[in-house]
Amino acid sequence: MRFTAASSFFERASEAFRSNSAYSRLLVVFAVSGGGGVVVYADAGSNHAIASEPQQPVPSKKKVVVLGTGWAGTSFVKNLDSSLYDVQIISPRNYFAFTPLLPSVTCGGVDARSVVEPIRKIMQKKGGNIRFWEAECFKIDHVNKKVLCRSTDEKNLVQNGEFSVDYDYLIIAMGARANTFNTPGVTENCHFLKEVEDAQKIRRSVMDCFERANLPNLSDEEKKKNLHFIIVGGGPTGVEFAAELHDFVSEDIAKLYPRVQDFVKISVIEAGEHILTMFDKRITQFAEEKFQRDGIDVKTGFKVIKVSDKAITMTHKDTGEVDVPYGMAVWSTGIGTRPIIMDFMKDVGQGGRRVLATDEWLRVRQCDDVYALGDCATISQRKVMDDISVIFKIADKDNSGTLSIKEIQDVLGDICQRYPQVELYLKSKQMKRFVDLLNESHGNVKKESIELDIEKFKQALADVDNQVKNLPATAQVASQQGTYLARCFNIMKEMDENPEGPLRMRGSGRHRFQPFRYKHLGQFAPLGGEQTAAQLPGDWISIGYGSQWLWYSVYASKQVSWRTRLAVVSDWSRKFVFGRDSSCI
Amino acid sequence: MRFTAASSFFERASEAFRSNSAYSRLLVVFAVSGGGGVVVYADAGSNHAIASEPQQPVPSKKKVVVLGTGWAGTSFVKNLDSSLYDVQIISPRNYFAFTPLLPSVTCGGVDARSVVEPIRKIMQKKGGNIRFWEAECFKIDHVNKKVLCRSTDEKNLVQNGEFSVDYDYLIIAMGARANTFNTPGVTENCHFLKEVEDAQKIRRSVMDCFERANLPNLSDEEKKKNLHFIIVGGGPTGVEFAAELHDFVSEDIAKLYPRVQDFVKISVIEAGEHILTMFDKRITQFAEEKFQRDGIDVKTGFKVIKVSDKAITMTHKDTGEVDVPYGMAVWSTGIGTRPIIMDFMKDVGQGGRRVLATDEWLRVRQCDDVYALGDCATISQRKVMDDISVIFKIADKDNSGTLSIKEIQDVLGDICQRYPQVELYLKSKQMKRFVDLLNESHGNVKKESIELDIEKFKQALADVDNQVKNLPATAQVASQQGTYLARCFNIMKEMDENPEGPLRMRGSGRHRFQPFRYKHLGQFAPLGGEQTAAQLPGDWISIGYGSQWLWYSVYASKQVSWRTRLAVVSDWSRKFVFGRDSSCI
Repeated sequence: MRFTAASSFFERASEAFRSNSAYSRLLVVFAVSGGGGVVVYADAGSNHAIASEPQQPVPSKKKVVVLGTGWAGTSFVKNLDSSLYDVQIISPRNYFAFTPLLPSVTCGGVDARSVVEPIRKIMQKKGGNIRFWEAECFKIDHVNKKVLCRSTDEKNLVQNGEFSVDYDYLIIAMGARANTFNTPGVTENCHFLKEVEDAQKIRRSVMDCFERANLPNLSDEEKKKNLHFIIVGGGPTGVEFAAELHDFVSEDIAKLYPRVQDFVKISVIEAGEHILTMFDKRITQFAEEKFQRDGIDVKTGFKVIKVSDKAITMTHKDTGEVDVPYGMAVWSTGIGTRPIIMDFMKDVGQGGRRVLATDEWLRVRQCDDVYALGDCATISQRKVMDDISVIFKIADKDNSGTLSIKEIQDVLGDICQRYPQVELYLKSKQMKRFVDLLNESHGNVKKESIELDIEKFKQALADVDNQVKNLPATAQVASQQGTYLARCFNIMKEMDENPEGPLRMRGSGRHRFQPFRYKHLGQFAPLGGEQTAAQLPGDWISIGYGSQWLWYSVYASKQVSWRTRLAVVSDWSRKFVFGRDSSCI
Repeated sequence: MRFTAASSFFERASEAFRSNSAYSRLLVVFAVSGGGGVVVYADAGSNHAIASEPQQPVPSKKKVVVLGTGWAGTSFVKNLDSSLYDVQIISPRNYFAFTPLLPSVTCGGVDARSVVEPIRKIMQKKGGNIRFWEAECFKIDHVNKKVLCRSTDEKNLVQNGEFSVDYDYLIIAMGARANTFNTPGVTENCHFLKEVEDAQKIRRSVMDCFERANLPNLSDEEKKKNLHFIIVGGGPTGVEFAAELHDFVSEDIAKLYPRVQDFVKISVIEAGEHILTMFDKRITQFAEEKFQRDGIDVKTGFKVIKVSDKAITMTHKDTGEVDVPYGMAVWSTGIGTRPIIMDFMKDVGQGGRRVLATDEWLRVRQCDDVYALGDCATISQRKVMDDISVIFKIADKDNSGTLSIKEIQDVLGDICQRYPQVELYLKSKQMKRFVDLLNESHGNVKKESIELDIEKFKQALADVDNQVKNLPATAQVASQQGTYLARCFNIMKEMDENPEGPLRMRGSGRHRFQPFRYKHLGQFAPLGGEQTAAQLPGDWISIGYGSQWLWYSVYASKQVSWRTRLAVVSDWSRKFVFGRDSSCI
């Protein structure tokens, strides 16, 4: 009875706090749109300060430090109940960028400013309990639980702008950098397409190529050289950029540079046999055929071995080495590890890996209270075979040395939660129950009556671990991980008492949280000319103008704020009416 | 009779051409908005080619080379009948920038891309008879009638991208650069505000200052230092930037950086006694009072003598030297001469001057077929006193050695055209006729009956040359000069036969064209907080919210294209609804 009373007091207090928070948010919004800002805001601020500092002393909040303002970090912060923690965000970029639209930024279809949202605006919406430092973290000291940072801009700062931040929980969401595979000359001569600045540079560079090719006294050879655009890497980013560039050239630039339009060539270099290999074969084929019709040269089976300022050297198993002169090159062959993550991996005994390994709860292995998500981490799913004897022991409640189907059914829920590959395997074989699995591995099994020993149990589960696959390094994964982790942090206290996770196989009791599960919502591959290929859940494929409109609506709805949503939509409309902008800025 | 017939044939032909031209423009517009561009455009292009190449061989067109794509160059090109000449434009910027909105770009109120229009779009609208080279002209060889140019980007080019272009007529419209008065450290440590790139850099720099000041472990002193924004120069640009920055800070940034908002300081340093001295005293006073209310520190009478990376050293006649630490400084003290203009001035015997001197028809003195307009040139108005004896001789038709009022009235129109200072003088003294001038200088004169000798004539006109004033270096002047010069070029052939200009005082016959006359349409000084001071023709002063709306409508209507007009208006609306963007890109 006392517990209920206390709980209802808490509820009432928190409700009051929440409504107060909403009230002050209202005031802030009013201040933003009203224009006569500061005074009104000051009121809202002090209201809020009163609301968040109750009269009884509260235990000091745990410090949560978030490294990075990309998809993972931002979605974590957006979904976190920031009143529970002392949150600090550290990133060299004070904004979140909607990266899937970067290829559109390269050709002026969408404006750079339309795809970014200041992280402080996002913090402001959460009530101001969060601090942000614009700095680069250069060392994670997990022993002393602190991170060392350096301002990106040294002017007027003491100690070169270096400082350290203590944490109780660390969220590493720093993303990745472009992977050059140590190919000589790439960093010096190629553009990447990971950051907003990259997209802006590519834009200027494309226009420079056209202006150069257009100068008087150039031979046709030189014009061709300047207007050869090479994209290395046939993944979604490279392909989308090639398509955007082709549209830009044929729809807008050709009219403005009629003297040189015939010299333009776009090439996509791919080391594998096909482009867009992560998509369904039908999409790959459609893309390759469309590119051929558009005159985009897709060179598969070519590996780039060197890049100079004038030519790209590549090799093919049949033809050997060739030098290809070019005007501009974009390198988009996947992601590599940031130096600080490499150092940290060495520190925690993960040296030699490509990205940080975490468990299914996004916790870095061998490292307490450090979480990693997004492109800088991967979940190393525990294998059933590694735990098979423990699982057997837990399931064998009567210690008979054999398992009845009843006993298996009792723990199957926990097993599927802990080892999602089991569920995936059942699904992929279109089996509904575990007994079907036994049927498959042992011939016709009379259900409920069978008793399994450990060998037979092992045999039944032998192939399930093949279902374990690394998640792709996409915005979708990062964003879902951020949301998941924020939820865990929001309910951490409750879960300490009433854990919701599966049975611990090694150890006793239950895991606190459900492990992270990725839900694939589909993927787009815009192919230019208002045509997009979409691979939706359930292997549903859609290609053409319809999915371009789906693309427009999904990307508009996924925008992080109403400002960017309006900006992106108005950029698109402007593109339709006036074409893309071709000024060199 | 034959002449009439020929003329009507010409009229019909030109009418046919014009309608054909309109037809192809219609097609081009359709192609732009339709999206499926190239083929349609090719049709339009060939139509046009047929229209502009009549069956009879035409004499080769004169080559007109335009240096610069600023206000003067662009307004010249826009208004030129490009079918009459072989036009080439040379500029390191392939776009026209609406410079009066640059201060708004610095604080994210308007987007950089919204204030620029690609020069090729402007060319395209004119039918494509114009060529553009993106290059820097580094030498004007007026003896051999050619200009030497260098591409701004050397990659993949022979001979370092250098080339030469021949001209028959050269239009120099290269503008000016910022004037540092050789103050040490300015170029290295200060921002300027002349180009779009400058505005973008200032924007990033403002945000960097806030991010730096916001870092942990900074003393209040250091925060203050980082958030001290200094504007050197109290002219319209500096004042408008100060006002924009103040609005940005108080309306948008203060909410996002609540920990540091109290440390912000904005100072305007002016060597003279007041800011905005080119405006009416009422505006100056209002601006100074408003800035004081806003907390903007206006320091008049201070001269900057040195800038280091941490402090600006300035001196005042009363207090002597002081060092003022700062976070960011913008240098806006007027315009200086570009090196190529200096070289050219030496070549044509104008060494030692600040800008190129032209005659009243914008022709560079001592230099045939070279015209200069905009900020790089100034009209050196011929003085009445220099020509007084010639004028007397021309007016004295009966060679009597004296002038009758009748004789003066006969040439007064030509005198006022050739020497606008005479008209200005009469206007400024509120005199309607020349005889009033005689009345003033000789007491009461009985009109029509008087005969003047040369001494009396000199005496009457003694003060008129004081009315000669250099035109301000504004967009308005440059734009009107471009329009004027284009008109001269358009009617050059007709004017060779039927000159419209005033009598030649030295030499015989008439000048071909009316000399350039500047028509002042008013000037704005936005002062922040949606208040603008406007000085309109006839000394009409308007200050406040009303003139801010006038500012909005004038600047929207003056945009060079519908695309930029829409972009600017939607940027303004976005600013009202969502505030300015504060991301560091």
